[in-house]
Amino acid sequence: MVGYKFMGKAHSHAYKDVGMFFEPAADVVMKAICGRDEQGVKDAANKFGWESYETDWRKMVARDDIDFVDINAPSDAHKEITLAAIAAGKHVFCEKPLALNLADGREMLAAAEKAGVKHAVCFNYRFLPAVQLAKQIIDEGRLGEIHHYRATYLQDWLVDPNTPLAWRLKKEVAGSGAHGDINAHSIDLARFLIGEFDRVVGHSRTFVKERPILTGSAGLSGTGSSTEKGEVTVDDATGFIADFKNGAMGMFVASRFAAGRKNHNTFEIHGSKGSIRWDLEKLNELEVYFREDEPNLAGFRRILATEPSHKYAGNWWPTGHIIGYEHAFVHIVYEFVQHIATGSPFAPTFYDGVKCQEVLEAVDLSIERGAWVGIEEV
Amino acid sequence: MVGYKFMGKAHSHAYKDVGMFFEPAADVVMKAICGRDEQGVKDAANKFGWESYETDWRKMVARDDIDFVDINAPSDAHKEITLAAIAAGKHVFCEKPLALNLADGREMLAAAEKAGVKHAVCFNYRFLPAVQLAKQIIDEGRLGEIHHYRATYLQDWLVDPNTPLAWRLKKEVAGSGAHGDINAHSIDLARFLIGEFDRVVGHSRTFVKERPILTGSAGLSGTGSSTEKGEVTVDDATGFIADFKNGAMGMFVASRFAAGRKNHNTFEIHGSKGSIRWDLEKLNELEVYFREDEPNLAGFRRILATEPSHKYAGNWWPTGHIIGYEHAFVHIVYEFVQHIATGSPFAPTFYDGVKCQEVLEAVDLSIERGAWVGIEEV
Amino acid sequence: MVGYKFMGKAHSHAYKDVGMFFEPAADVVMKAICGRDEQGVKDAANKFGWESYETDWRKMVARDDIDFVDINAPSDAHKEITLAAIAAGKHVFCEKPLALNLADGREMLAAAEKAGVKHAVCFNYRFLPAVQLAKQIIDEGRLGEIHHYRATYLQDWLVDPNTPLAWRLKKEVAGSGAHGDINAHSIDLARFLIGEFDRVVGHSRTFVKERPILTGSAGLSGTGSSTEKGEVTVDDATGFIADFKNGAMGMFVASRFAAGRKNHNTFEIHGSKGSIRWDLEKLNELEVYFREDEPNLAGFRRILATEPSHKYAGNWWPTGHIIGYEHAFVHIVYEFVQHIATGSPFAPTFYDGVKCQEVLEAVDLSIERGAWVGIEEV
Amino acid sequence: MVGYKFMGKAHSHAYKDVGMFFEPAADVVMKAICGRDEQGVKDAANKFGWESYETDWRKMVARDDIDFVDINAPSDAHKEITLAAIAAGKHVFCEKPLALNLADGREMLAAAEKAGVKHAVCFNYRFLPAVQLAKQIIDEGRLGEIHHYRATYLQDWLVDPNTPLAWRLKKEVAGSGAHGDINAHSIDLARFLIGEFDRVVGHSRTFVKERPILTGSAGLSGTGSSTEKGEVTVDDATGFIADFKNGAMGMFVASRFAAGRKNHNTFEIHGSKGSIRWDLEKLNELEVYFREDEPNLAGFRRILATEPSHKYAGNWWPTGHIIGYEHAFVHIVYEFVQHIATGSPFAPTFYDGVKCQEVLEAVDLSIERGAWVGIEEV
Repeated sequence: MVGYKFMGKAHSHAYKDVGMFFEPAADVVMKAICGRDEQGVKDAANKFGWESYETDWRKMVARDDIDFVDINAPSDAHKEITLAAIAAGKHVFCEKPLALNLADGREMLAAAEKAGVKHAVCFNYRFLPAVQLAKQIIDEGRLGEIHHYRATYLQDWLVDPNTPLAWRLKKEVAGSGAHGDINAHSIDLARFLIGEFDRVVGHSRTFVKERPILTGSAGLSGTGSSTEKGEVTVDDATGFIADFKNGAMGMFVASRFAAGRKNHNTFEIHGSKGSIRWDLEKLNELEVYFREDEPNLAGFRRILATEPSHKYAGNWWPTGHIIGYEHAFVHIVYEFVQHIATGSPFAPTFYDGVKCQEVLEAVDLSIERGAWVGIEEV
Repeated sequence: MVGYKFMGKAHSHAYKDVGMFFEPAADVVMKAICGRDEQGVKDAANKFGWESYETDWRKMVARDDIDFVDINAPSDAHKEITLAAIAAGKHVFCEKPLALNLADGREMLAAAEKAGVKHAVCFNYRFLPAVQLAKQIIDEGRLGEIHHYRATYLQDWLVDPNTPLAWRLKKEVAGSGAHGDINAHSIDLARFLIGEFDRVVGHSRTFVKERPILTGSAGLSGTGSSTEKGEVTVDDATGFIADFKNGAMGMFVASRFAAGRKNHNTFEIHGSKGSIRWDLEKLNELEVYFREDEPNLAGFRRILATEPSHKYAGNWWPTGHIIGYEHAFVHIVYEFVQHIATGSPFAPTFYDGVKCQEVLEAVDLSIERGAWVGIEEV
Repeated sequence: MVGYKFMGKAHSHAYKDVGMFFEPAADVVMKAICGRDEQGVKDAANKFGWESYETDWRKMVARDDIDFVDINAPSDAHKEITLAAIAAGKHVFCEKPLALNLADGREMLAAAEKAGVKHAVCFNYRFLPAVQLAKQIIDEGRLGEIHHYRATYLQDWLVDPNTPLAWRLKKEVAGSGAHGDINAHSIDLARFLIGEFDRVVGHSRTFVKERPILTGSAGLSGTGSSTEKGEVTVDDATGFIADFKNGAMGMFVASRFAAGRKNHNTFEIHGSKGSIRWDLEKLNELEVYFREDEPNLAGFRRILATEPSHKYAGNWWPTGHIIGYEHAFVHIVYEFVQHIATGSPFAPTFYDGVKCQEVLEAVDLSIERGAWVGIEEV
Repeated sequence: MVGYKFMGKAHSHAYKDVGMFFEPAADVVMKAICGRDEQGVKDAANKFGWESYETDWRKMVARDDIDFVDINAPSDAHKEITLAAIAAGKHVFCEKPLALNLADGREMLAAAEKAGVKHAVCFNYRFLPAVQLAKQIIDEGRLGEIHHYRATYLQDWLVDPNTPLAWRLKKEVAGSGAHGDINAHSIDLARFLIGEFDRVVGHSRTFVKERPILTGSAGLSGTGSSTEKGEVTVDDATGFIADFKNGAMGMFVASRFAAGRKNHNTFEIHGSKGSIRWDLEKLNELEVYFREDEPNLAGFRRILATEPSHKYAGNWWPTGHIIGYEHAFVHIVYEFVQHIATGSPFAPTFYDGVKCQEVLEAVDLSIERGAWVGIEEV
């Protein structure tokens, strides 16, 4: 694994837990974790349970005892490490965004396909029981024809102008701001649930243009800051409307300036037979409305997706005992390991990473043009 | 009053109740109600408590004992009746939309201003205690600089393809579909709460193109239908994104195809100091988040706007005893009567009707063009 | 009508509105309102739309042009006025509590039955659409055998020790505190929904023993107060557990000391086939769970009881347009007028007032004894 | 550790995770797990990450390489194993209920105190961030004087009469039903949050008297069942009211028959200055009302207890990323390890187990007597 901060911790935990709650077809052995700062990565290796550590990812990627590389370093490093891992014949599990731009993403996809390695992008929210239930309901046709898809992904960690200039706020490292970081999740969920985008038009803002320069880094926002200020080069918020190939109308907004919304990743879907609503802050719940219910008894049902009949839920605790954020990583890791070991179907792969990137860039282009942009134009 | 169906009932009730719960500066006397069908309007006069009835609005508008005309006939009749009432020197209270198009609306506004009569457009939702509280919080600067405004107005009475072709679905009578009928409310609330629109871009759909022709009419959807079908000439749903003059990002969607959402008129506003959320289906409640709250105790507050300190609430029942949909009409009637009798400030006037119409038409134009349209372009 | 304060206003409004939204089998004519203070009652007559007023209830009760007397004076006056009205052959609609004690209540019931007049106790909450829906679901057996019934009726208007000593806080006028005032509603709803009580055991508190003496009176808490203090002679809160005849377990609490709960009249019922939850602060909503739903799709449904198929709802506004607190009075008045005019079945009558009083007194007795008390013991 | 089923899994996971997310003052080494079925315990050891396994708890308790024993075997085994572990000088972490009865619990407490070993009862819910926040708010006096405490612990896994006769339904193994299993949690939280009980009176039910005999066991309800039936010897539901030493009124109900309530462990507390509400199904949230808020802006705040300022939350993920059920075990294990290693204060100990048992037994006695029972009477 390359990376040992927020995502490194979440991924490590998944490798640690997967064998306890699932029966993967192959043993997961936590061989090595890699980071540039020796003390930091050594501590992480100890704390997170890795057998060894490396400070040079090239060395790690070259190790014979490693079959599968997990890349959760900052976004600008994804491409180089991924290509090297593929070249070394490793399977690759890459954090989103797959790449800083579409061209890079396509190159990575082509390389992976050519090499015949297994590849995944960590759109982890697909793997929550409530989201899986939404998928099942839609696939069974129980919402009918889809008319509307609306998503928000709202956070508020930047609304304070003194929040420092973390790497996620620098275009050269992160590629994009709220758009690439969190709209990416919403776009992937929309593709997963109702299908491909046709065209988009959007707008964006950087509400606070300069922020204190950061002196350390950890979590989402880093730690320590100086009185000196640097320029924010990514968007604080991006919204867009969309038409889907299937005729549905879409509406998306990602913001790090939504006071009081901490991790408000939501979708609401209306079809000819019913509706669905979900919110990551209550990730175990799915609200579902069926028009086929008796008219005087129809209403949004609050389903607690903790029943044995809910995918993955039965692997954890008895009904009503909720799971948390990190569990989605356990599930995606489980599915990817199955995919590697048994060839079972798996998505999201790099293909999905590329398709997501197409939508992201079409939105950016629409902002430049002030007009709708077809996805096939990017 | 001209009109005696859904809105006729709601307005009549307001005139009946206003003197019981408020102390208007002038007595409200319910002189005459007018409609084309004699039996229908006669029954309505009896049932709703009007002293007399007319079948020709021209006669009613000419009566000397009438100072003030309320127009809630279908939208295509608004202009003609309004101009006649103004010409007769009456004050006019007109249902929204003010007119079928912007040019008509501007003509009506100019006529009213020239004649010096008082004029109002019935954007009733401004007058709910929770919405008034939202306005007060924003005006006091307690949300700070506004970054985001999102509104939905969702209903589902058309999702059934057998719902008949009511007048609201014919462009020549209604002017517009969900956009003019319910986005209009959302646009007015946005203007009321955070100010003017700068530019917009949207999309719309008519999901069901033909519907059974209606043989009667009442409520929202009419009664009775034939096997013959007619063409739906308005939108079932319209969504758009907006930039506001103050820099805020806006997002709006109106739909009559949102299964399970019955009257889901909502707004969510994020500012640099806090956020607000409201939903008409829970119209007595306002959710408010203040960043100034202690960090470990900050959270969205569910405020029940039934305290004596909440505008209008004290005129009704003790705290915790909620009010319903029709109360907003009592409040707007009260304020307009005060305006006529005492010259107290009043909005929304025809000016607000026109400003709302501008946004509606700019969205329509953006749909034609596939690109952003500035409000000043219409 | 006798009484013109909070309840007088709510009842007057119901008489005024009933003919507009319903088709009662007899015309409702608002003949006379009665109160001791001439100016006050005269103003109320004008404001509320009564044809005349009286300052002596004896005179009013004797008037030939009156068929039906509504009594909403303070509780200590109920008995005397009711008995006089019955003696004069009038139908009687009495606010709850029916009487200050069980013996009085029984005397009133016997007198009404003997005289053959129609009688009602104003347990208005039975007549809300969502509560009617709960009743229908239970009567159709869709909850199965009832196992649990829990109710709260929580307010917070006394938690401030400076709230003055209103008549509702004096035992000689009110008979009881939170117990008789608001537990009474919960007891009536429980009897309405699941049947008779078998035995009870409770506890109560008067948290603030002395309060400022009141100099005026209006609403729940009166207006104006002096620095002098008087003793609170009723309970601030009473809770009890109950066994029902049908084997269900019950739990009830009424308090005027529940900070933040304004009118939190709730019930939650669990049966062998499903559950129901309701809250007066969201009176248009009913939450319902059916075990027969598919296991992975079962969840509490939030039903908005504003559909035409919901009792009374269709008489008001289109779906999704909520009603408020006072509408329940319109509905009970409608049903009682039907009962008088056509002999249609009606409850709650004085019988229900007596049955409720039995439970209230059994709880009081259980508090004295420190042990369970059977309802038949009082 | 003794026990390897539901609780065994939850505890194992806690030992595995504690070092990754916290910095315990002593290393936690997972030496051995013990169970009677060799294959089962061997598999569990592998899956859960234990170094070795034992089939005889006596052998395990005697091992020199073990300092600390975790007992989560069925309740009837707690006493014997605990006493042996204490005798061997081990620190003991025991699942609740501490013992089958009060006398046994007292004996265990006395033994532990005499031996000077550290002891804990696994009332894990104390250790959730939202519950810790509730505690902090109360301890800081921000609710003022406490007037009301109401708790529910509702599940529905027994409402189906075909749910088999698991060990939790046999008095000789479990000691008690819903009362001892889940009211115990509510009693402990009440003691933790507002203090000691003074007296109680309750009632209980066994709604389904006979159930299919179980042929396997796992999770809450076991697996596999025969057509033969056995008698249920514990309560399905127990409710009671309570007076607290501090004058507060209490109300408690535990049921496994509350259709649709999966793990509805809730409390609501009203004080002279504010109120708090919590629900385990939304365990990351705390609802808080402060009377000191401006009157027109007061409302229940929904606080998402995932901020760095919320106890334990900062050890996991960034704000808004929720945790799940099992995290509470990580926290209690962390605190107990700190207690052993550094002598830091710790509760709940066996003392709290005994105090909880006193209340449970006082309720049972009150049911026998049909009257209030003082806690000091048991």
